[in-house]
Amino acid sequence: MPSPKPQSFKAPTGTRDLYPEEQLRQRYITDVWRRVSLRHGFDEIDGPTFEHSGLYAVKSGDGILGELFQAFSGKSPDEIAAVRDTGRAPFALRPEFTPTLARMYAARANQLPKPVRWFSVCNYFRAERPQRGRLREFLQWNADVIGLSGDASPAQKAEADAELVVMLAESLAEFGLSASDLAIRVNDRETVGERIEALGIGVDRAEDVLRLLDAWAKMDPGARKARAREIGLSDDQLAGVASIMEDAIDSGPTRALIDLATGLVPEATVRADPSIVRGLAYYTGTVFEAIAEGERAVAGGGRYDNLIELLGGPPTPACGFAMGDVVLGNLLDDKGLMPSGQDMLEALSKPMPVRPDAFVIASNDEAAAQVVPLVAQLRRGTLADDAPERKPWDDARFAVPPLHARRSSKATRNVGKLLKEASQHYARFAVIIESPDSASIKDLDANAQTSSPVPLAEVAGAVSRRDLSAYL
Amino acid sequence: MPSPKPQSFKAPTGTRDLYPEEQLRQRYITDVWRRVSLRHGFDEIDGPTFEHSGLYAVKSGDGILGELFQAFSGKSPDEIAAVRDTGRAPFALRPEFTPTLARMYAARANQLPKPVRWFSVCNYFRAERPQRGRLREFLQWNADVIGLSGDASPAQKAEADAELVVMLAESLAEFGLSASDLAIRVNDRETVGERIEALGIGVDRAEDVLRLLDAWAKMDPGARKARAREIGLSDDQLAGVASIMEDAIDSGPTRALIDLATGLVPEATVRADPSIVRGLAYYTGTVFEAIAEGERAVAGGGRYDNLIELLGGPPTPACGFAMGDVVLGNLLDDKGLMPSGQDMLEALSKPMPVRPDAFVIASNDEAAAQVVPLVAQLRRGTLADDAPERKPWDDARFAVPPLHARRSSKATRNVGKLLKEASQHYARFAVIIESPDSASIKDLDANAQTSSPVPLAEVAGAVSRRDLSAYL
Repeated sequence: MPSPKPQSFKAPTGTRDLYPEEQLRQRYITDVWRRVSLRHGFDEIDGPTFEHSGLYAVKSGDGILGELFQAFSGKSPDEIAAVRDTGRAPFALRPEFTPTLARMYAARANQLPKPVRWFSVCNYFRAERPQRGRLREFLQWNADVIGLSGDASPAQKAEADAELVVMLAESLAEFGLSASDLAIRVNDRETVGERIEALGIGVDRAEDVLRLLDAWAKMDPGARKARAREIGLSDDQLAGVASIMEDAIDSGPTRALIDLATGLVPEATVRADPSIVRGLAYYTGTVFEAIAEGERAVAGGGRYDNLIELLGGPPTPACGFAMGDVVLGNLLDDKGLMPSGQDMLEALSKPMPVRPDAFVIASNDEAAAQVVPLVAQLRRGTLADDAPERKPWDDARFAVPPLHARRSSKATRNVGKLLKEASQHYARFAVIIESPDSASIKDLDANAQTSSPVPLAEVAGAVSRRDLSAYL
Repeated sequence: MPSPKPQSFKAPTGTRDLYPEEQLRQRYITDVWRRVSLRHGFDEIDGPTFEHSGLYAVKSGDGILGELFQAFSGKSPDEIAAVRDTGRAPFALRPEFTPTLARMYAARANQLPKPVRWFSVCNYFRAERPQRGRLREFLQWNADVIGLSGDASPAQKAEADAELVVMLAESLAEFGLSASDLAIRVNDRETVGERIEALGIGVDRAEDVLRLLDAWAKMDPGARKARAREIGLSDDQLAGVASIMEDAIDSGPTRALIDLATGLVPEATVRADPSIVRGLAYYTGTVFEAIAEGERAVAGGGRYDNLIELLGGPPTPACGFAMGDVVLGNLLDDKGLMPSGQDMLEALSKPMPVRPDAFVIASNDEAAAQVVPLVAQLRRGTLADDAPERKPWDDARFAVPPLHARRSSKATRNVGKLLKEASQHYARFAVIIESPDSASIKDLDANAQTSSPVPLAEVAGAVSRRDLSAYL
């Protein structure tokens, strides 16, 4: 039998061969994503790499639908016949995670806790033209808070939105990106929609106006005027659109979200920006993006309160964001924030905080206001004095390292019930806040509890050292 | 605009929705795969999820080619037209890793060190009928040693084969699977082929005989005889085939591999089995499988010395194996070897041994024979006396924990050059074996070296404790 002739193949356009050095860089990015998610009490999930194509027709929008990689079984005569007949295949390589996530939640909505906090780190596929920052296969981190308990009020939704914006901000800090490198810009699609409607602009032109807002910062006054003419706006209406940009959104959900988030994020990294629209058709209210200079979006997300119902589940509020590895990797390179050599190997050797270090509860209404700030402080850690001189992957940057902290979603103040919930999460310590400035700590492994009050400022240190002896 | 009607979607047949609990189980499996690979000095890589379909036509064999999931860009008029025209798509979702790996090695053969030790943990796709142990999307761990230096001798190839078989055995031990749960069965396709030829059986019927050997253990003598008739074997030839089974393979590469491996694996888990054939067309010599009772193959691999040349690279010896997550997960469940609850969270919190703990070198020829055994001992760790009563994920099972150990592939005894290589791998310690029973240890971070000899039996403890003070 003659030997086959040698053939040379390359990776398909827009995909990557990850040799060991490039794979370490990907691991660094995905390790940070996982570590930050776990610390914030999110559970990891995953779904199929391909889905029924129809799943994306529900709400993903034309941008995504036009760029699907389609797939079919080459073993199935029926599928082959259908593809030959229609030019369309029954499956699509996932272009994004939200439809899978919504489908998975809808299928088990009755059994799942409310809310669930889910994250995933998976690969995605879009048949767009490859260019800097865009590939046809890429990784994405997704994090979502789905299914608030009861009839979620605007305040409860804002709290879930803020939880995600804070986690996004913490992830950027973990990569060493500061407020001067990039800002998180938030907006509310509903509020902007109402403002546009109030200018007497019909629903049929609202999408054009959103696109004008999206491009606003990159246009000079002449270009804005020309574009306004094209889409049929009067001079008064253009002035009205300009006023939306100028006074930003200083009321409603955006204000509530910014107030909540800025109280928990150390630097002023969160601000309103009515030009943030997001391309996906399923967003219903809050939308946000992390944007670096050069207007590169590193991450984006928003609230999609209708999608789970559209996929056969009960009406379910939901909010989430996604961050891709390509723009982020370029940005870390540009800023000198990607470790290499021994630094890289050590950065990748850190343990993952899978088990909760602390489950924080309040024993009375007065103490309850301290739960969210203490949880945020535990998750963030305390920087050492010389932190600014240290690299982001250097553990010595922290006087007290960031911890995995969780809290209850229940309204009860019954400490017995809440301690039971702490055990169900396998938390190492339960932190019971008893007054606005002190707590007791229970070591759930050793079944030992502090007898003298622990000042809230000392909780992180005691939990981190796994040492309650000063308070027993 | 009327609201769209709710639609209900399920995951495509044979794929999985991984809710948090199932995702933890997958993480447990992939964490063990990664940890064992890293300890054995393998570097992680990855490739595209889909490849040009032609890549699999080179040597994957009809079994795989018939079960490809095909993919195309739904944005490309040319690709859509081609699919409509031919019923075949330009891309295939990867059904296995070896062709990608061989393509990647071939593309950089000149720059890469010889050999490379590469591993990957990726998802794969086959359009086969889903059943217990088989899914249409699954995970697989691949590990390969590619490109031995110089003209590799049979002995050098056997050493690379043994390295992989030993790592496979260590991974099974890490999962808590013992020699009584499953054995690694090895064979040499070339030797068996020669034995078949010597019986006067033509090349055209050799494949049929290999299939008969594959099914041998499951058939009674009557069924064997009937099958032999069908494929045109005489009674004498059938007796000859039986003799291949009976005397196994007690010479050549299989013997060499077993001798090398059994010296390094604690229990007798490796044995010859001429019925091991493996379905893939690219195997050229050694083949092996890890088979549990019920004849379920948990892992399999072999030598593919021609594939890289067929993909445009230089002639390159290569050997590797793969282990899937589905059969393995079922087996761990059946044996009670899958952690749950707090055990699971703690098992997943362990640090990954990305940085080498030790780089082992020999300062003279007499000491050189100790390198491989010491490296194997460091990687395996030392069990505590009460290990049999402990779960596989319990760190207290070890008196000295398993370490990440590497060694040079170079023949030189120049200690200066070898220490330089240790530094290039960012090893924490260099272990310089100086006699058949002692070494000196250099702390490469502190730049301090032992002055009194360290007995080889004490090396693992000193490196593991990161404490050389007793020998300074």
